[in-house]
Amino acid sequence: MSKLSDEQTLQIQQSRDSAASTRRVVSSGLEEILYEAIPVLDHGFVRVVDYMGDDSAVVQAARVSYGRGTRKVNEDRGLIHYLLRHWHTTPFEMAEIKLHVKMPIFVARQWIRHRMANVNEYSARYSVLDREFYVPAPEQLAAQSVQNRQGRGDVVGPEEARRILNVLTEDAQRNYDHYLDMLNHDEAGERLDEGRQGLARELARMNLSLNFYTQWYWKIDLHNLMNFLRLRADPHAQYEIRVYAEVILDILQKWVPLTFEAFREHRLEAMTFSGEAVKALRRMLAGEKITHSDTAMSKREWDEFQSALAKR
Amino acid sequence: MSKLSDEQTLQIQQSRDSAASTRRVVSSGLEEILYEAIPVLDHGFVRVVDYMGDDSAVVQAARVSYGRGTRKVNEDRGLIHYLLRHWHTTPFEMAEIKLHVKMPIFVARQWIRHRMANVNEYSARYSVLDREFYVPAPEQLAAQSVQNRQGRGDVVGPEEARRILNVLTEDAQRNYDHYLDMLNHDEAGERLDEGRQGLARELARMNLSLNFYTQWYWKIDLHNLMNFLRLRADPHAQYEIRVYAEVILDILQKWVPLTFEAFREHRLEAMTFSGEAVKALRRMLAGEKITHSDTAMSKREWDEFQSALAKR
Amino acid sequence: MSKLSDEQTLQIQQSRDSAASTRRVVSSGLEEILYEAIPVLDHGFVRVVDYMGDDSAVVQAARVSYGRGTRKVNEDRGLIHYLLRHWHTTPFEMAEIKLHVKMPIFVARQWIRHRMANVNEYSARYSVLDREFYVPAPEQLAAQSVQNRQGRGDVVGPEEARRILNVLTEDAQRNYDHYLDMLNHDEAGERLDEGRQGLARELARMNLSLNFYTQWYWKIDLHNLMNFLRLRADPHAQYEIRVYAEVILDILQKWVPLTFEAFREHRLEAMTFSGEAVKALRRMLAGEKITHSDTAMSKREWDEFQSALAKR
Amino acid sequence: MSKLSDEQTLQIQQSRDSAASTRRVVSSGLEEILYEAIPVLDHGFVRVVDYMGDDSAVVQAARVSYGRGTRKVNEDRGLIHYLLRHWHTTPFEMAEIKLHVKMPIFVARQWIRHRMANVNEYSARYSVLDREFYVPAPEQLAAQSVQNRQGRGDVVGPEEARRILNVLTEDAQRNYDHYLDMLNHDEAGERLDEGRQGLARELARMNLSLNFYTQWYWKIDLHNLMNFLRLRADPHAQYEIRVYAEVILDILQKWVPLTFEAFREHRLEAMTFSGEAVKALRRMLAGEKITHSDTAMSKREWDEFQSALAKR
Repeated sequence: MSKLSDEQTLQIQQSRDSAASTRRVVSSGLEEILYEAIPVLDHGFVRVVDYMGDDSAVVQAARVSYGRGTRKVNEDRGLIHYLLRHWHTTPFEMAEIKLHVKMPIFVARQWIRHRMANVNEYSARYSVLDREFYVPAPEQLAAQSVQNRQGRGDVVGPEEARRILNVLTEDAQRNYDHYLDMLNHDEAGERLDEGRQGLARELARMNLSLNFYTQWYWKIDLHNLMNFLRLRADPHAQYEIRVYAEVILDILQKWVPLTFEAFREHRLEAMTFSGEAVKALRRMLAGEKITHSDTAMSKREWDEFQSALAKR
Repeated sequence: MSKLSDEQTLQIQQSRDSAASTRRVVSSGLEEILYEAIPVLDHGFVRVVDYMGDDSAVVQAARVSYGRGTRKVNEDRGLIHYLLRHWHTTPFEMAEIKLHVKMPIFVARQWIRHRMANVNEYSARYSVLDREFYVPAPEQLAAQSVQNRQGRGDVVGPEEARRILNVLTEDAQRNYDHYLDMLNHDEAGERLDEGRQGLARELARMNLSLNFYTQWYWKIDLHNLMNFLRLRADPHAQYEIRVYAEVILDILQKWVPLTFEAFREHRLEAMTFSGEAVKALRRMLAGEKITHSDTAMSKREWDEFQSALAKR
Repeated sequence: MSKLSDEQTLQIQQSRDSAASTRRVVSSGLEEILYEAIPVLDHGFVRVVDYMGDDSAVVQAARVSYGRGTRKVNEDRGLIHYLLRHWHTTPFEMAEIKLHVKMPIFVARQWIRHRMANVNEYSARYSVLDREFYVPAPEQLAAQSVQNRQGRGDVVGPEEARRILNVLTEDAQRNYDHYLDMLNHDEAGERLDEGRQGLARELARMNLSLNFYTQWYWKIDLHNLMNFLRLRADPHAQYEIRVYAEVILDILQKWVPLTFEAFREHRLEAMTFSGEAVKALRRMLAGEKITHSDTAMSKREWDEFQSALAKR
Repeated sequence: MSKLSDEQTLQIQQSRDSAASTRRVVSSGLEEILYEAIPVLDHGFVRVVDYMGDDSAVVQAARVSYGRGTRKVNEDRGLIHYLLRHWHTTPFEMAEIKLHVKMPIFVARQWIRHRMANVNEYSARYSVLDREFYVPAPEQLAAQSVQNRQGRGDVVGPEEARRILNVLTEDAQRNYDHYLDMLNHDEAGERLDEGRQGLARELARMNLSLNFYTQWYWKIDLHNLMNFLRLRADPHAQYEIRVYAEVILDILQKWVPLTFEAFREHRLEAMTFSGEAVKALRRMLAGEKITHSDTAMSKREWDEFQSALAKR
């Protein structure tokens, strides 16, 4: 559970207590949760810290309108579905959200590959990092997948799990102890040894392992957020980033319910079939019995095609 | 003067009349002018239609803070000046503004070259453009500059001006008449001639000249907005885009007064001297008399250097 | 037909005649056509002026290899299909192409909306534009589509066509005459009237209509080029930009034959079905007879779904 | 020293031995070093693996020319200096370079913040990382700077240095031993213990510290490369990324000698003075004696101003 300091909790509460009048569009779903830290993993969180626009910003921009641009909910829904289905992406760039996220460094390294966003990360050159590192829950300790070179397979046995958790915890604790020691600091920031100078923060940090937590402000528009979610909420994404994506999916639903619905329909639950797959489909619908050798699909694509049609 | 239709005026008024409570940061300077059409050129305007954050968003992100992130105004000012002076640009990406702009197509063509922004333009494939085109004021009818291959020189004489204004106006009117005629429409959108089908809008529009007005929604973050303004509010920018930049400078001042002040100080009024120019400066400060032949600057750079130091 | 001046033809020939030795990957398909102007529309062209990498750059980057990164053609083909099918886009960003394109301004205005590219446009502030404007072939003069608010329908009748072609030609000629006149230039660049100063180029150009030709250097990576082609080679794209996309499709095939094949299979000929459409598909494959009222698809989506399955 | 495996050395040599004829522009300076691994830090390197264009690509695009676009070297030099001095950045986007870089993860984390580039990183989800981690040379073990919250001060004493080097080395070795152990692998990739499954690679990697080496393919255009170098070759950049920037500066000089010269003159050695600083300068040049209290500069800016003018 993310342990916020008393001061952090107070700052969040003060922000939540503030209220002001605005002529801008307001998302009641987001106002409800604004600034709150939604816990993820053992020490992480996601907080919405600001936003601009909602579903109406999408239709307003699509119509280049002088007013709110919205009409009946049904017309707006139809327009949003149409835009998403036909890859008209620019109207979705007109709404924006800003999150404060705390996550393990190896998650941050995947996250940052989405370049169409703005980021301000907490600087370990400037400040000392806290003793906070990710240790997976035992049920997350999976073996290397046999079929998938970049995925997980079965959960490891309890004995092996115990051993792994010990190693991860002990190494992270020791690395952090040595980090403080090289800085010549104790946990409270007091100098340890008057005879030593202490290593520069920008160097000492290199002793920390990739499961230590970092944090950043992250701002992204609705179109690019959906791109992020399509990849990171996917079952093939690594679990440790997928749990963040799932929290953000909930935020998306509160923020832009019509866009969320269309996104689920036309992206998350949609399927793309290749030219060969479409040809096979047409023959199957005409009553033909098709096997892999009747098509030019690769074995791998054929298997995915079969399982796509079988899924319920 | 930009003539809004009654319906447009009503829509703007309705948006302005709306008020809601928000926990977000509110910029009182922008709330004041939100949705209003600020006139530019003969038919253009700039309207702020949404925004996210203000100066506090910059310091909040720079500090990756849990609360508002702001301290005393003096500390915030110092931080913002420091960030801008040292090219720490990412905190300025954390505030965002959305404008509705109406401008001549040749202005839009320069504007769109700033890629780090989001745009939804009014579509002349989808809708018919209005009979609105830019005709310069007589005092803007300048001759080609002799020194500057891409600038203006002196204002042309009254006789030549009259002739030019006639040509511009008559050609635009005629081109628009023919545009409607090819569409087989009258001004009210009624079909002209039952015997004709009317040319597709996406084709007919090619007969309009570059001074016709278009409009778009344009969203940009504070960092990229300052890049835009540095180039387009510059005296070397074409007058017709500079007047938009100047209106946006006023908006910037209302929105983020501390950032505006630092931007003026460290960008608009700042000067960059090359390595050679700095060497010359040091010698001049040491009391030497320096002429062009004492330096390795090009003639053009030397002239600019001289006039930079002479300006008061 | 694009009429190049003698000097332009000579410059192109000189570039084509040059040859040098390189250790870089060479695309024999592109070397063949390098620098040549491939004609498009009545005065436009596309020229490949440089490129970096080919199919091997994609597999090399995907494998982060020390050498060429390529293995057997079959393995490379499999990898490229896999990458494209699973939206692994970054390896395709590792190959780059640079084109010199000449096109009508209204086409350039659509083109420039693809922001993930680099552009240097011929400047009409700096130079005088030529008397070259697009006039559609009679078979391209289509009426406004009735079903599609932004498309074309049937070709207009011969009488209406003649009238339209006259208007387009006469207006463009007159606008160009007046452009020169305002500049106080004749066609050869000689001053017309000693008593006049001539309007600045940056102003005079506003009298030209949107069918005048402009040109630019355009550089883009393979991933973003495929995005461009997916949208602009689509049957719904406006004809005048689609013909450019089709020429570039041929270039793509010469440059990166494996990627081209995968792109056709997994993008151009692929189909995306929404969650509702997939549910319907599964029921149809199980032998059910499905009509629109059995699904939650909109009427429009249902119609598109039907025609997708019916297409041969 | 970067130890390449025999196979890697062979692959590099084979690439270097290849030669083909091309009509493209060739940079003899880059051909000379193409594919070679230039060592950086204790295990890192930079390799140029491809490039497109050279100085001539800049002038060619600036002139939107049909041929090579180059004239006399002096004219080209003048144009390039002019473009850079006046922030005409788009012509510099027309040349491109691709590097293969191996660097510590904490360096990669700074590097990736430059978003206007293309990256393919070696995947530790897919493959096992090598036992290669950065240990600073003793003369790089600096204490935290007292004036600069994110920089280094004096080198620490020999006793403290010895202790730090021991800690860094032992922790990295132990973390790597445990990484292999959790994977249930020995160094040669053989399974250690038949009774254990081995943790998935995507999880085990989290035990590695930030000084372990990663590698990627990195492609960037000349304009954005100069932005990178301006920030990362700066004396305020962290030493461990600055040494990479310095190697790339050498590459820049070999690739685009005219642009390199202009970049050094108008960026690296240039100085930007704020509005207040310019006012002070003018008074000083007029013979006035100016102290901090005569200006509106902050103390910090004033100090930087003084040292800028004093520097030799």
